[in-house]
Amino acid sequence: MGQPHLDLEAPPPLPPGALRVMALGGLGEIGRNMAVLEFDGQLLVIDCGVLFPEAEQPGVDLILPDFGVIEHRLDDVVAVVLTHGHEDHIGAVPYLLRMRPDIPLVGSRFTLALVRAKLREHRIDPVLVEVAAGDDHVAGEFHCEFICVNHSIPDALAVAVHTPAGVLVHTGDFKMDQLPLDGRLTDLGTFARLGAEGIDLLLSDSTNAEVPGFVTPERSIGPVLDDVFEHAAQRLIVSSFASHVHRIQQVLDCAVRHDRKVALVGRSMVRNMGVAADLGLLRVPAGLMVRLDDAMTMPPEQVVLISTGSQGEPLSALGRMARGDHHHVTIEAGDTIVLASSLVPGNETAVYKVINGLARLGATVVHKETARVHVSGHAPAGELRTLLNVAKPRYLMPVHGEWRHLRAHAALAEQTGMTADRVVLAEDGVVVDLLDGKASIVGSVPIGNVYVDGLAVGDVGEESLQDRRILGDEGFVALTVVVEPSTGTIVRPVHLTARGFSDDPAAFAPALALVEDELRRQLSTGPYDAHRLSQVIRRTVGKWVSDTYRRRPMIIPTVLEV
Amino acid sequence: MGQPHLDLEAPPPLPPGALRVMALGGLGEIGRNMAVLEFDGQLLVIDCGVLFPEAEQPGVDLILPDFGVIEHRLDDVVAVVLTHGHEDHIGAVPYLLRMRPDIPLVGSRFTLALVRAKLREHRIDPVLVEVAAGDDHVAGEFHCEFICVNHSIPDALAVAVHTPAGVLVHTGDFKMDQLPLDGRLTDLGTFARLGAEGIDLLLSDSTNAEVPGFVTPERSIGPVLDDVFEHAAQRLIVSSFASHVHRIQQVLDCAVRHDRKVALVGRSMVRNMGVAADLGLLRVPAGLMVRLDDAMTMPPEQVVLISTGSQGEPLSALGRMARGDHHHVTIEAGDTIVLASSLVPGNETAVYKVINGLARLGATVVHKETARVHVSGHAPAGELRTLLNVAKPRYLMPVHGEWRHLRAHAALAEQTGMTADRVVLAEDGVVVDLLDGKASIVGSVPIGNVYVDGLAVGDVGEESLQDRRILGDEGFVALTVVVEPSTGTIVRPVHLTARGFSDDPAAFAPALALVEDELRRQLSTGPYDAHRLSQVIRRTVGKWVSDTYRRRPMIIPTVLEV
Repeated sequence: MGQPHLDLEAPPPLPPGALRVMALGGLGEIGRNMAVLEFDGQLLVIDCGVLFPEAEQPGVDLILPDFGVIEHRLDDVVAVVLTHGHEDHIGAVPYLLRMRPDIPLVGSRFTLALVRAKLREHRIDPVLVEVAAGDDHVAGEFHCEFICVNHSIPDALAVAVHTPAGVLVHTGDFKMDQLPLDGRLTDLGTFARLGAEGIDLLLSDSTNAEVPGFVTPERSIGPVLDDVFEHAAQRLIVSSFASHVHRIQQVLDCAVRHDRKVALVGRSMVRNMGVAADLGLLRVPAGLMVRLDDAMTMPPEQVVLISTGSQGEPLSALGRMARGDHHHVTIEAGDTIVLASSLVPGNETAVYKVINGLARLGATVVHKETARVHVSGHAPAGELRTLLNVAKPRYLMPVHGEWRHLRAHAALAEQTGMTADRVVLAEDGVVVDLLDGKASIVGSVPIGNVYVDGLAVGDVGEESLQDRRILGDEGFVALTVVVEPSTGTIVRPVHLTARGFSDDPAAFAPALALVEDELRRQLSTGPYDAHRLSQVIRRTVGKWVSDTYRRRPMIIPTVLEV
Repeated sequence: MGQPHLDLEAPPPLPPGALRVMALGGLGEIGRNMAVLEFDGQLLVIDCGVLFPEAEQPGVDLILPDFGVIEHRLDDVVAVVLTHGHEDHIGAVPYLLRMRPDIPLVGSRFTLALVRAKLREHRIDPVLVEVAAGDDHVAGEFHCEFICVNHSIPDALAVAVHTPAGVLVHTGDFKMDQLPLDGRLTDLGTFARLGAEGIDLLLSDSTNAEVPGFVTPERSIGPVLDDVFEHAAQRLIVSSFASHVHRIQQVLDCAVRHDRKVALVGRSMVRNMGVAADLGLLRVPAGLMVRLDDAMTMPPEQVVLISTGSQGEPLSALGRMARGDHHHVTIEAGDTIVLASSLVPGNETAVYKVINGLARLGATVVHKETARVHVSGHAPAGELRTLLNVAKPRYLMPVHGEWRHLRAHAALAEQTGMTADRVVLAEDGVVVDLLDGKASIVGSVPIGNVYVDGLAVGDVGEESLQDRRILGDEGFVALTVVVEPSTGTIVRPVHLTARGFSDDPAAFAPALALVEDELRRQLSTGPYDAHRLSQVIRRTVGKWVSDTYRRRPMIIPTVLEV
């Protein structure tokens, strides 16, 4: 299998007639998906999403793809194709458009509706090009053909990009639910036709490559919900992703069958379902919906709340309910809460905290580990093999996955008969050229993490994060001494501030005495040197705290001269 | 179902003839298991374990049960019964024995061997009472009878405590593997006999109460390992818990069958397997083991390394290998790594980071989600029901679980025909009295988290943790101004130190000018007031940073008077 060179050099200039492919995100991680295609000086971007931070990136709100590689060439970008409306595919669009607002955004109706709402918050008025499955759109040298795929959000598309160098197909995120609620099947016929014509390079979703078999239909959740509704004697709350229109549709249908009214809880849930209903993607029976205020005055057994917070977000409606501090909703013993959602890796602790909080209050909590109230939106191994067999690409480049997923996808390709040299295993920044029908890794460019924290983009970097990790684990102790430099006398004894180290305010008292002694000794035995005094403070306190506590708080000495 | 009162009062004095039961840990959480029994002024402790911290408890090494409830009564403790040698059952023993070293510790041979090794590190020489399944031990008014149970560590015991108030049975951790490697079956016969004689209160392991069915035998892992060994052409590394003797035994047996020598990697692995071999619990064929140094000079296909690090610990041997910075072991493309272990909730991100690191280097990683290389050590629903049907307790108190597990266990009990009033749902600190054959909640005592951080116990509390969380997410900015108080003049302009806020060293320059202005205005318009100046600094910087960045770093103003 094409072993990625872990120490690649910068790529050569793009040869004439070649198509270049590079991911700025989404290869080696789940999130911030962004592929950049280059042909004859023109760039086509496919998706532009965000990545959510891990515990090792404390305080960060979002991680963006590193635009550094293309930001000096934004005028060369002929379009951004958006395969669907999930945050990991559209979330970074505002940050790209801040730099050049008139880059055309090409996508399906629902995708563009979501991205338009997002851009409005950033006060950006975008250039939108709406396409549907089967449509063509020509952006410079890139002739794009859009293909229907089925995913956990409506209106998802794959894209075939026809270029003089060859044909590249990007699946976006997809699965092959054979009984989709909206009838939108992944269009295997078109994949087969493209395959027969010749797909040079297939970029395919690897998220579930480690999972054997085929997806369970979304539709199968309906009867499970029916059973839960049937047994719920009191209040019923269903939590899900705010973009999962089909999941919400099933809850609405279930509510109709069980004579419950529906109230939506959570800003993004209300907004997205409004958009979906306006576009005819969510069928809302007349009289079904009630306002939350009204819902709370109705008998609990006559309402179902549909809420955000399925990932254990502490500030979400459900998070507050679990702690018993939601303004409107109080959980009572015997209530039923359904988490009809995935458990995104990294959120486990938060989600279980919510489940335990609800269980403690006496609620029955139904979640994916206790009942089939969720199915994944990504094709597992069986479907990935199917796509490979149908599309028969010359080369496969697994995308959208951590390394474990990319490798698993590569192994599936080998099972279907592709030889190892036909699988291009790349990570973010690795440059792949398609030339004369042959795809190969030609180099790599450095890709960093661009952090959004509050209003600022990029000012928090690895140095700040490293400081945060130390401060967060160990706290700090700051020691300030005021010195008269001409005489080398201490004008004011050492002032100490420590936070996050100990609940005992006197913890550092012994160290303070030691420092005073050391400083006096220093000043009496040599010439005054502010830097040296700082070192003395740092060393003395560092040794004391290590010996006494076996801990390493951040030590910040300051010598102020007056 | 016995609904716990969430706002219970302090319990009344223990009535004569009553048995009191209270958990200091393990109810409402997975870990720091510790139950305290009281009869006629005497205390019996069952287990004394640690809890591992979550992300919300940054920098903490361990969490202990809150001994506050019993520390003024340590002379009343007649014994500590240890059901088995896992950290969440024995890890806090050294901290208890620091306060009274001669409390007798009662447990099986392997359990005591592990606790002895642990106490040696703390320089404590304990009083040990070795017991085996079937043995009796009388500790004051508590007549203890030990029962064989099967778990993921050898030599585990349940305990029946006969008291004048009635019979309490505590399962410890258990499962019902019907083909255990060492032949030690969970002794249903004794549970049945005790049930026939009358069990008044059963405390039973709830960890897997949400999991349907029955455990897969530990033995079933052998053929899976055989298959992995069969296909491994190069280096092979198996990672597991250092206390899982039976899992390691299977790796040894597999190594023999596939002509590989074995080297152990990791301090705790070497130590525990030494103990297990000495006690005859691990059968090590002569000539099988080699030293790691020697293993590294042998052809890779002739060795298997058995390593710690299965939970993704970054400093473990496996964690270092995954990052490519282990001193001795370099992962090559084509190597095979097996994580033959559970994935402890909260460790997911760390474990996947290790798996991805290994996959990136080209290794094939086999883990519980891709092959059956792990089975749990805890009884799932089917076995919990079986125990209830065999032991027929009058009352059940689910233990060892978060709220979701305790409630699921209660639901299982109701399925077996126990009425809701026979299930005592309690959390840490809730006091249950058994009087005249009736178990009931009579109150609760406050239970806190006692944090071990480095060498100190208890000095880090909620205040320090709250500071750490803020510092870790947002960093801090400290501003110091030196003032001559009698004249109210600023002797030295504001000195600013910020860490963890921004990688831009000039980030706060505009704020600094604002603060200087505000301070001067303050000093020129009113009498000098140090506290007021601090407030001005905090408010000015706080508003500026919130307006500019939408962030909330810790702001630490200091006014130094000279």
